[in-house]
Amino acid sequence: MSTSGAQASGEDSLIARYFRPLAKDPGAFGLTDDAAVLKALGEDIVVTTDAIVEGVHFLSDDPPHTVAKKALRVNLSDLAAKGASPAGFVLTLALRGVDETWLAAFARGLEEDAGAFNCPLLGGDTVSTPGPLMVSITAFGRVPQDRMVHRSGAKPGDHIFVTGTIGDAALGLDILRNGKAAAALASDAASREMLIGRYRVPQPRSALALAIRAHAHAAMDVSDGLAGDLAKLCAASGMSAVIDLPAIPLSKATSAVLAGGAVSMDAIVSGGDDYEILCAVPQGAFGEFMQATGEVGVAASPIGTIMAGTSSPKFLDAEGRELPLRRTSYSHF
Amino acid sequence: MSTSGAQASGEDSLIARYFRPLAKDPGAFGLTDDAAVLKALGEDIVVTTDAIVEGVHFLSDDPPHTVAKKALRVNLSDLAAKGASPAGFVLTLALRGVDETWLAAFARGLEEDAGAFNCPLLGGDTVSTPGPLMVSITAFGRVPQDRMVHRSGAKPGDHIFVTGTIGDAALGLDILRNGKAAAALASDAASREMLIGRYRVPQPRSALALAIRAHAHAAMDVSDGLAGDLAKLCAASGMSAVIDLPAIPLSKATSAVLAGGAVSMDAIVSGGDDYEILCAVPQGAFGEFMQATGEVGVAASPIGTIMAGTSSPKFLDAEGRELPLRRTSYSHF
Repeated sequence: MSTSGAQASGEDSLIARYFRPLAKDPGAFGLTDDAAVLKALGEDIVVTTDAIVEGVHFLSDDPPHTVAKKALRVNLSDLAAKGASPAGFVLTLALRGVDETWLAAFARGLEEDAGAFNCPLLGGDTVSTPGPLMVSITAFGRVPQDRMVHRSGAKPGDHIFVTGTIGDAALGLDILRNGKAAAALASDAASREMLIGRYRVPQPRSALALAIRAHAHAAMDVSDGLAGDLAKLCAASGMSAVIDLPAIPLSKATSAVLAGGAVSMDAIVSGGDDYEILCAVPQGAFGEFMQATGEVGVAASPIGTIMAGTSSPKFLDAEGRELPLRRTSYSHF
Repeated sequence: MSTSGAQASGEDSLIARYFRPLAKDPGAFGLTDDAAVLKALGEDIVVTTDAIVEGVHFLSDDPPHTVAKKALRVNLSDLAAKGASPAGFVLTLALRGVDETWLAAFARGLEEDAGAFNCPLLGGDTVSTPGPLMVSITAFGRVPQDRMVHRSGAKPGDHIFVTGTIGDAALGLDILRNGKAAAALASDAASREMLIGRYRVPQPRSALALAIRAHAHAAMDVSDGLAGDLAKLCAASGMSAVIDLPAIPLSKATSAVLAGGAVSMDAIVSGGDDYEILCAVPQGAFGEFMQATGEVGVAASPIGTIMAGTSSPKFLDAEGRELPLRRTSYSHF
């Protein structure tokens, strides 16, 4: 991503106008060079990359500033789950053409979050596409050497925690598509708005990164559904798990939709786009971890226990009956 | 990019099958985690990102292994021009669906180049798209602290060098589109093949990275046309330049097309996709730089001189007449 004073092409002047204000890190060179420099400062660089595609991860009429925020936040969510502090990101933007109003709002949303999460734009690429808009971000974080938190590492007896609430984003998408959740909440505009907001603008738990690094045996973010992502964490750790379904944290809105029968619990635990952190914390660190979550103001709920074995995690209801899962997670293919 | 042993979704098993063999760096964790770790080893990390889009940067019927190579090589070209040694890359692949034959060939091409350029796959993301195929790569290199070579830094009197030959790729694309170059080379299949190859599979000048770092005041890769990219280097350096048109290195095939009148010299110097290195080398380092290019077997031609001033670079023919340029480079918008 670069611009030229003397011979600004269309692409160059777009970059200068909309994205240079975000490139505050000295390693970005004001987006005037072909590459950026990331200083490691003696730490490891954690690298994550996630793309969002119009019609797949966001809707064509989603506000541009929420599209920008989602694109960055899904990456920030990964960094937080790995125990890393944000260090910067590069952006690839595939656009059908130049809609200056859209781009200005997109850049504003991105600038807000780059500032709020202390994650400056380092560089990028803008390309034209005849197809759907796509935003691909590669984000960087820092951890002390060899201290990235892995999916693997969970041990029998570890408490399983999940942050925030589960299922809201999937219901938000359902509402945007005029599904059953929309009908169930027809008279509750505030709840509909909240759930849509959870779909459009995830809340990366960056404030919890240090506590994850200090206390968790294993962690990942929940992006493709709690059940499927827990299965992945267990598989990577060579473990199984038992989850206490009533302990899964739900928002009031999601509880209401669930109570009304418009959606089932298995849809909640296999819905995507939560962007919460799932982690395994050893029994001895339970208190310290809970205290740390309180100090940074991120709710984290203990929802079950890591078990020895390699069978799929079990989700048990209040009577100890296992919830049958039709599918555990979202897959693109 | 991640896979799960227990509950491999379609996306996960694709990754395991085709891309895990490329993830040889220990920091890739075999693509089983949510993020990768890049060790800085006390150096600066150079970050570059470039995406290629079907129908824009490559053609729908280009062989999948050349699409993979081009996607990686356009990034390797940037690293080389910045004086950086490759350290790894992350890949975002937006696919319409799963064509296993295509994917297998794509992965094979990528694996060959990841090996040949010592640039392992660290992670990535695969997403579905209803639109054109897109490959976005963010690549990492290492340079000693504060030693990345910039676009800025060229000084009056510096020799301007360009590697390889200029204009071949633009003619290759013209041939694939059955343009004038195709007609001009109708009876010369070998030349047509060579030019098409230059479009599909650029030759990143990675072997020259150390010499660039040791000797160049300023450097960048030529991706959007020599004239436009030189203008950018000059603008970033606050300089102007004079180029000796007959000194611009041309392949025999391109010389033949030019001699036959099928294309003009201004199309050659403003054609894109060269992926050669343009650099400014101080007079005192001329001999050492030429020797270094010989040692690594990369041809580099002196084509002109950096001048004080801020006017656009001049391209002068053998009689000292200035070549008028209709456009200087490719812009997406």
